[in-house]
Amino acid sequence: MQFQFQILATDQNARRAQLHLRRGTVNTPAFMPVGTAGSVKGVHPENLRETGAEIILANTYHLALRPGDKHIASLGGLHKLARWTKPVLTDSGGFQIMSLGKNVRVSEDGATFNSHINGDTLQLSPERAAEAQINIGAEIAMVLDQCIALPASEQKTRDAAERSARWARRAKKFWDDDPRVSHSEGYGLFAIVQGGMSYELRKQCAAELVAGDFSGYALGGLAVGETQHEMLEVVGAVAPLLPRDKPRYLMGVGMPDDIIKAVIRGIDMFDCVIPTRAGRTGLAFTGCGTLNLRNACHAADERPLEEDCPCPCCRADPAGGFSRAWLHHLVRGREILAAALLTVHNITYYQRLMRALRGAVERQSLAQFARDFAAGAESPARGSEASLPEPR
Amino acid sequence: MQFQFQILATDQNARRAQLHLRRGTVNTPAFMPVGTAGSVKGVHPENLRETGAEIILANTYHLALRPGDKHIASLGGLHKLARWTKPVLTDSGGFQIMSLGKNVRVSEDGATFNSHINGDTLQLSPERAAEAQINIGAEIAMVLDQCIALPASEQKTRDAAERSARWARRAKKFWDDDPRVSHSEGYGLFAIVQGGMSYELRKQCAAELVAGDFSGYALGGLAVGETQHEMLEVVGAVAPLLPRDKPRYLMGVGMPDDIIKAVIRGIDMFDCVIPTRAGRTGLAFTGCGTLNLRNACHAADERPLEEDCPCPCCRADPAGGFSRAWLHHLVRGREILAAALLTVHNITYYQRLMRALRGAVERQSLAQFARDFAAGAESPARGSEASLPEPR
Repeated sequence: MQFQFQILATDQNARRAQLHLRRGTVNTPAFMPVGTAGSVKGVHPENLRETGAEIILANTYHLALRPGDKHIASLGGLHKLARWTKPVLTDSGGFQIMSLGKNVRVSEDGATFNSHINGDTLQLSPERAAEAQINIGAEIAMVLDQCIALPASEQKTRDAAERSARWARRAKKFWDDDPRVSHSEGYGLFAIVQGGMSYELRKQCAAELVAGDFSGYALGGLAVGETQHEMLEVVGAVAPLLPRDKPRYLMGVGMPDDIIKAVIRGIDMFDCVIPTRAGRTGLAFTGCGTLNLRNACHAADERPLEEDCPCPCCRADPAGGFSRAWLHHLVRGREILAAALLTVHNITYYQRLMRALRGAVERQSLAQFARDFAAGAESPARGSEASLPEPR
Repeated sequence: MQFQFQILATDQNARRAQLHLRRGTVNTPAFMPVGTAGSVKGVHPENLRETGAEIILANTYHLALRPGDKHIASLGGLHKLARWTKPVLTDSGGFQIMSLGKNVRVSEDGATFNSHINGDTLQLSPERAAEAQINIGAEIAMVLDQCIALPASEQKTRDAAERSARWARRAKKFWDDDPRVSHSEGYGLFAIVQGGMSYELRKQCAAELVAGDFSGYALGGLAVGETQHEMLEVVGAVAPLLPRDKPRYLMGVGMPDDIIKAVIRGIDMFDCVIPTRAGRTGLAFTGCGTLNLRNACHAADERPLEEDCPCPCCRADPAGGFSRAWLHHLVRGREILAAALLTVHNITYYQRLMRALRGAVERQSLAQFARDFAAGAESPARGSEASLPEPR
């Protein structure tokens, strides 16, 4: 049964809301750390919870290949296996239709992948992708869509968008018929609006999907090579076409600045590999910019990444509070502790940003927050969360 | 000023004692996890403390190269940088004289290394190695020795042992003259007995070093290719030649079974990369043997590594208690969380073993413990720590 979605405050087009899911409430605007194979790389679930993350994203293609969605179901589901007690959203495998390129064949029935691991064949139809996500135990499943790289021809973009809309209906029918999600409260299936850079195609796709009455709506096929300006144009044009009373999710986005500007345009949910991948390559997000800890300028810097950050890398008590100098040393030595510390810091940074955004919407001061952030005056830490109650 | 060494109990040749060092007490028999570059790979110092580890080992050669011992001193020392509040022992670089082979030239003055990182030249004389360790801030420094691979000719073994003894005297003179360690309580300099497989050479080397009145005595040049039987023969023959009132340290050893048999022969301290390196390659130590988590037999095993283990991998509350099935998945996916979890588990296993050994010595039941361990009946968890008070 579909989850409850409750809008607590608005500021122009921006919304501050809650998704009441099977395994917990997600406060929006929300950022979902990416755990492709069911585990956010290098982060213990206990530390992940401490970052403030209330939902993570896992990937159907990857988990269906290894360890297998039926295997996951037989062991009690992903939450139990990965010891993550809060909600999970699974992407459907549609992104891999694009990213795995020549290893994928697409027909009206679905997609056939040659495994990137061992060449085994994996078939994902709209129905099979939905089934896999239910097997995994995700609170929010995504319809299988056909994601394409940009730029693309009008015809190719139209074909993919129309097929995605047909696949979405098939996924919905399958999902509605599975008692594991349709007879329990707090689950949902999101449709994905495709259509590339074309307003007309996006509008047609959105209209078809809205008629299908999904639990939420995602914007797909963005953050795939277009400029930020182009991306925001699509977001600004499409968000108003989506139901006001359903969550809106911008897939694969992005940098903090992208997120702020998309929240202003009415987006509620985000996921992106940037904070985690950056952490593994020695990059740290801070209120004073993005630091590359490999750089020699950090070699003797005794400051933590951020003075007031509560993460296991920055906090001074009882054993944290690593200096930039030491992080520089760990990064240069390719110590995996560096990857782990920077990853958990970056996720914390993103979660504090989302918290600050929620507070700004509640106080109807989002425009000011965005200006301050752009001017470097507003760090996530300074934008404090509002006084609105947060039901558990 | 030399630290206090207090023997609390004995069982035949085995001892249960305490080293009262500058930054804390080390209960022996003790196992020192290896943090070559100042950080135990993949383990947050807070988690390391939770394993029960009371001292770690770092490496002078590696730290002198990067980030540099003077750099470490200028930033307040290794403890502050690495956020490790308990004692540190540094190996001197003598092991690297052997392990780096062709990149090292040795003369009576000392060793000249070509950096394994960038080819830079690093010179370590006995004096310079001692100075570097004082700069790093180690509570226990090791004299520079000339470690050689086995088997080796009698002449080569004799030359290395005699040179090591001469170098030890030079190191001692330098160390005694540095007020940072000689005017503060709780520091120490250990000599290293060399001499290969020759009892005569070991005996001569030990006699020379004992005359030098060091804070403790190590057996070096073992665990370098000889059998366990050969190693234990040397340990059993040399340990009685060392002062009863000083700690004895068997360098680079070893597997749990090696440690138990060396404790029986009077050894107090150990270090080894086995538990950490094994963790990074998917191996887990348990009371029921060593598990290779890559093996498919673990794919559906819902048990934790060890039921009663308190480590962040095994403990069930609030978010730990990973199943072997999930660890198998993480190892197969080369997730760095697997390395981190297995490493901290393995260190915990070793610390619980040491705790059990201390208890067995206190109860004078070490022989029985060793028999039970060999028969598989004694897991570290079951050998409980004694009721003797442990001063802080």
